[in-house]
Amino acid sequence: MADEKTQVRFGILGCAEIARKVCRAINLSPNSILHAISSRSIEKAKQFVVKNSLPESVKVYGSYEEVLDDPFVDAVYVPLPTSLHLKWAVLAAEKKKHVLLEKPTALNVGELDRILDACESNGVQFMDGSMWYHHPRTAKMKEFVSDTKLFGQVKTIHSSSSYFPPQDFFENNIRTKADLDCFGALGDAGWYCIGAILWAMNYKPPTTVTALPAATIHNSNGVIMSTTAALHWEQEGTTATFYCSFLSHETMDVSVLGSKGSFHVEDLIIPYEESSASFSFTSGAAFVDLHIGWNMKEQEVQVQNELPQEALMVKEFSRLVKGIKEFKIRPDKMWGDISRTSQVVLDAVKSSVDSGKMVYI
Amino acid sequence: MADEKTQVRFGILGCAEIARKVCRAINLSPNSILHAISSRSIEKAKQFVVKNSLPESVKVYGSYEEVLDDPFVDAVYVPLPTSLHLKWAVLAAEKKKHVLLEKPTALNVGELDRILDACESNGVQFMDGSMWYHHPRTAKMKEFVSDTKLFGQVKTIHSSSSYFPPQDFFENNIRTKADLDCFGALGDAGWYCIGAILWAMNYKPPTTVTALPAATIHNSNGVIMSTTAALHWEQEGTTATFYCSFLSHETMDVSVLGSKGSFHVEDLIIPYEESSASFSFTSGAAFVDLHIGWNMKEQEVQVQNELPQEALMVKEFSRLVKGIKEFKIRPDKMWGDISRTSQVVLDAVKSSVDSGKMVYI
Repeated sequence: MADEKTQVRFGILGCAEIARKVCRAINLSPNSILHAISSRSIEKAKQFVVKNSLPESVKVYGSYEEVLDDPFVDAVYVPLPTSLHLKWAVLAAEKKKHVLLEKPTALNVGELDRILDACESNGVQFMDGSMWYHHPRTAKMKEFVSDTKLFGQVKTIHSSSSYFPPQDFFENNIRTKADLDCFGALGDAGWYCIGAILWAMNYKPPTTVTALPAATIHNSNGVIMSTTAALHWEQEGTTATFYCSFLSHETMDVSVLGSKGSFHVEDLIIPYEESSASFSFTSGAAFVDLHIGWNMKEQEVQVQNELPQEALMVKEFSRLVKGIKEFKIRPDKMWGDISRTSQVVLDAVKSSVDSGKMVYI
Repeated sequence: MADEKTQVRFGILGCAEIARKVCRAINLSPNSILHAISSRSIEKAKQFVVKNSLPESVKVYGSYEEVLDDPFVDAVYVPLPTSLHLKWAVLAAEKKKHVLLEKPTALNVGELDRILDACESNGVQFMDGSMWYHHPRTAKMKEFVSDTKLFGQVKTIHSSSSYFPPQDFFENNIRTKADLDCFGALGDAGWYCIGAILWAMNYKPPTTVTALPAATIHNSNGVIMSTTAALHWEQEGTTATFYCSFLSHETMDVSVLGSKGSFHVEDLIIPYEESSASFSFTSGAAFVDLHIGWNMKEQEVQVQNELPQEALMVKEFSRLVKGIKEFKIRPDKMWGDISRTSQVVLDAVKSSVDSGKMVYI
């Protein structure tokens, strides 16, 4: 049984739709508990409690400051618009709250560096809200990519992340407003493509980033609705391409092609089902004599998970927080480093879209 | 039963490895029969007969000219190096032989135009050797892509075609020699990516082609071993990317993403098995409440085929030839048009690799 006294107590800043999922995840994870929620409007916060059947023990605040001032809050989850990340993540760190921050992490890497610096100087843990890193399928895929005998070296990666939201989204969603989230589909969907590509490259940043400005669609606010970009690693000779969009059918694919093997997954970011997920791979594939078929078909690897990936994310974050709280272990910088590399590439793609030029990193 | 008198009689120019597969296909197709094979060396031609257990009735020639001069030959299959296509395809047409030409069709579209003109002015059928067009799976996928209710409009396409041949290939294969085949992996593997992308766009040429010169690897002869390129259709706002390589594990993928649906296939060019093939699709996919899963998984569509796709190609080609021979129907220009659009894009990618610039078509 979970010991409530040692559970990490979460506060949530804002009642965004995604907060419903993470709120559930906080309660599903054995080492964390939801302590407080907040909204700029107390009414909205109260509605959130009802809609999500939260227990009466959860504190309900009408401002974010109150969450940060609550001494029982160990950590905050921040699903605010990107333009507000800098202010609230830094404030949270200064109040010694550990920070689980929604993606994209900031408006640019300069802002993210200020957030990471604040976390470091205040001794709090940082992690961004990319859930798929925490699924055991991701670890299983990593095993395969790292197996030089089966997979060889990574040669190319392609990822696609898209969805086609209803009309209302294009008029009202924060992801379509230049003052709230300058990245649009690139920051929302493209963040995952960039993350998946970097994951396959062990988070080594590419040498160059080339977006296709002609193939980029902006809305009337100048926010990216759809784009395509290519990344290149000079030393490795590896190339990656990705497509992210608010104008296409639901996809979250990644294909990684090595010298000896390859694999692909169609539901990377959110698996089709909660309790298990799969990926398909081949290794040593070749044509049979006369080239009338293959020596093998792709194999499907199924991976079970005890908890949904978002709960595994909260569990890992809380494990680190407990280590800091109870055993004075230093915060793990790995998660901040991963976010930072993603943000650097995100910025470079945006810069390449805007300039029409190849960007060196 | 096949009526030998009305079967289209094929001659083959050259004993390339691929000729073994097509030679088998000619005999599998009910409306065609192998009449003659040839090589510049009669010994090599004789070995080919033995290796492929061809009947004694097959004529064996020590020169290509003899095949073209054989009055019983209706059609020729030309698997010669690309640099020899112009000479031999034009000569064949002038000798009133119908022309089934291996891909890439020519060293540039100017050469292909001379081949197509020769075919037209001599009233013979032209078709290139891309087999996958003729698989019933391709027709089934086309049904899906054309269904605006299920699929919507094409938004992006990605294709990958690669293999990692043994060392000997890099030293001796014609695809690595600048004087025999200037396109290398682009012409061999990339031809299929370009074809698949154009197929999804109903063979409408893109507005622009942008290769990634930095991400292109050449061998010491200056021949492309690996490259990545992006295509863009301005009017439709559609983008496509592809990767082709001699340096990666076996792939022949294509993913087509529409506004309402998407599909992907992993064994496009040569199906895993001869007698059936599948593709996977989703339409109307969305997340369930809380975004903890999807409302559907992708569906696999299995398509049976009575004959291997290469035999279906020969059957279709022979059907057209018989129409011309027996009923004086005019040659079908569609296949030449498809080849020509592929060649135009192939040339543009090569030009973009060489110049480092975006190429307008």
